[in-house]
Amino acid sequence: MKKIFIVLAFVLSAMSISAQQALNARVDVQTATVNPDRSVTIQLLAPKAKKVQIDGDLVGGVVDMKSNKKGLWTYTTAPLTPELYTYRLNVDGLYITDPGTVHTVRDISRVMNMVLIEDDKSVYGVHDVPHGTVLSTWYSGVATGQRRRVSVYLPAGYFESNKRYPVLYLLHGSGGDEQAWLELGRTAQILDNQIASGKAQPMIVVMPNGNMSEDAAPGQGTKGFVVPDIPAEHRMDGFFEQNFDEIVEWTDGTFRTIKKAKYRAITGLSMGGYHSFWIGINNPKCFHHVGVFSGVYFKENMYSASDIYDNHEEKLATFFAQKPDMRIYIGDKDFLYQQNVQMRAYLTEHNYPYIYTESGGGHEWRNWRNYLTDYVTHLF
Amino acid sequence: MKKIFIVLAFVLSAMSISAQQALNARVDVQTATVNPDRSVTIQLLAPKAKKVQIDGDLVGGVVDMKSNKKGLWTYTTAPLTPELYTYRLNVDGLYITDPGTVHTVRDISRVMNMVLIEDDKSVYGVHDVPHGTVLSTWYSGVATGQRRRVSVYLPAGYFESNKRYPVLYLLHGSGGDEQAWLELGRTAQILDNQIASGKAQPMIVVMPNGNMSEDAAPGQGTKGFVVPDIPAEHRMDGFFEQNFDEIVEWTDGTFRTIKKAKYRAITGLSMGGYHSFWIGINNPKCFHHVGVFSGVYFKENMYSASDIYDNHEEKLATFFAQKPDMRIYIGDKDFLYQQNVQMRAYLTEHNYPYIYTESGGGHEWRNWRNYLTDYVTHLF
Repeated sequence: MKKIFIVLAFVLSAMSISAQQALNARVDVQTATVNPDRSVTIQLLAPKAKKVQIDGDLVGGVVDMKSNKKGLWTYTTAPLTPELYTYRLNVDGLYITDPGTVHTVRDISRVMNMVLIEDDKSVYGVHDVPHGTVLSTWYSGVATGQRRRVSVYLPAGYFESNKRYPVLYLLHGSGGDEQAWLELGRTAQILDNQIASGKAQPMIVVMPNGNMSEDAAPGQGTKGFVVPDIPAEHRMDGFFEQNFDEIVEWTDGTFRTIKKAKYRAITGLSMGGYHSFWIGINNPKCFHHVGVFSGVYFKENMYSASDIYDNHEEKLATFFAQKPDMRIYIGDKDFLYQQNVQMRAYLTEHNYPYIYTESGGGHEWRNWRNYLTDYVTHLF
Repeated sequence: MKKIFIVLAFVLSAMSISAQQALNARVDVQTATVNPDRSVTIQLLAPKAKKVQIDGDLVGGVVDMKSNKKGLWTYTTAPLTPELYTYRLNVDGLYITDPGTVHTVRDISRVMNMVLIEDDKSVYGVHDVPHGTVLSTWYSGVATGQRRRVSVYLPAGYFESNKRYPVLYLLHGSGGDEQAWLELGRTAQILDNQIASGKAQPMIVVMPNGNMSEDAAPGQGTKGFVVPDIPAEHRMDGFFEQNFDEIVEWTDGTFRTIKKAKYRAITGLSMGGYHSFWIGINNPKCFHHVGVFSGVYFKENMYSASDIYDNHEEKLATFFAQKPDMRIYIGDKDFLYQQNVQMRAYLTEHNYPYIYTESGGGHEWRNWRNYLTDYVTHLF
């Protein structure tokens, strides 16, 4: 054994070097550095590039980077307010992710870099609080005959007790999938932090895939590594809403839920708001809480093989007769703002109560994270 | 309501277009296309680039792409055998991920593109079989005083029964983390497929983070969006091995496990093989199955504050007296090959039985996926 010991010394020191190089592969160019004043410095070593720009909300639009003689391009933002920012680089017309950082996030069919700026009050970061569990699992989609992938958040303590929990069904927007609320929405971090500080009740969050033509997010399902081309008319044709009961049944059969309307919420952003609205008013005995973030309510050609979109006036009357917790959020620059004005006018005219929160900004994840952060404090 | 309906028609058709554009943002340049003959075509639109290369096992090294007059660079590989391939692009000296596809994977501090080529026998893809559940959760690291992130695979049916399952503790290599075996190792897909075909027993797989200086993979822990610089000497100093009992206790306390050595395996790649070996021989009553993939066994300066590395000859004698299931895998081009020759010579000399599998190739994920695919068929 002693002999082996000596022979191996050389081999192992070689391995240490190799591992070290891999870990430090990018240390020569530090990028996406958050400075003490909360400004962010982006750097790129590209001696042959003629023009390099940063594009994204990190820089509030598009800015030019400047190069030194060695071809090291640099840009430092102004001090930024705590938020989750995204950016890409544009090198001589080619949009790329910053090769100097591993922190990327996919938004539909685009990959961007991500920078998190925090302060003590930030709820998007991972803090030293009890953490919930994030599950990627599958349920049998009876309507589609597919196994369908679903993300689930279980609150801290779930596995250590026999307690039952309320459920928030949280729906993504057009082009999103079962990963959107976790990745861009920071749902697990928001829930962990809001529950830990006592602002929200411990709850289960179920995030299904609302694209009935897909069984999973790109690369996660049986279609393999493709980016699906989902026809718009198949995303809002009533098929998802009509069959949502199979998701509720699966949830109630798989996790320790409280099987009462008062302990169920259905909430979504944009298209997911549309889904939530129609699922909610079609199932008043199932959901007491309905939330619509930057939502759609009605659209042209509301074709449905089912009766999902029929008799909506009666359905709304029945729904509101149960005194539901209906909440509407939208930004004042959202392209759906006018639709929301009309919808609210209708609700007000009929004396249907709802709670309305208007923010600045438009149709964007920054708003949806903020809405969720507030919304979960009002539930259950 | 009718009135709203009409007003909204314009808004909604605008939204459809916007969503559609986002989804199809890259359809003008199809890349990473798997052709019917299993060749792969990579394309990049970069009119200002002077030289574009592909780098990675997809092309077996480095190849030049060719441009047409419009600046569309193209390369088609030879027909490829079913495998998971990776690549990056090199545009005028700048290494980037292919901006035309969302399929990327992080290996330590580097992001690469990923292409999956399948046939009927492939076990890396998602097939129409019952799927297990992948959990990202946290346990209390008593030794470090940290909450520590851990990935867990629960086999299909876990939530629908009260059955107890055996556990494979699966450890990553130097610079890896709790996501490595899931992302590059395709553990969930391999287990799903091997269990569904009856080749492997249903089992729980626990994938902890073996870097005791880190609480989680980059971007997933309390350090925020940084890439950690983990000192090599802190990865193999006995601290992880010494405190592995807290992971076993947490697993047995959280999931429905079979709490017997015969139903526990500990297995890892490279540094994780070293961890597995030392945890195994220090805890012969805990683990019947020990697996080492492309492993390290001994290294220079095996300093430990504990007695993990002391009295190894006696520990090996005690361990092998229990007739464990010891399996060693390595590729004939692995830089650790000679160390494995020496280790096997020692085991053989002492009549310590082990099962040895030698493959082609080196210190690479392709081998580790293949080893896992085989290994799980021999367990429990």
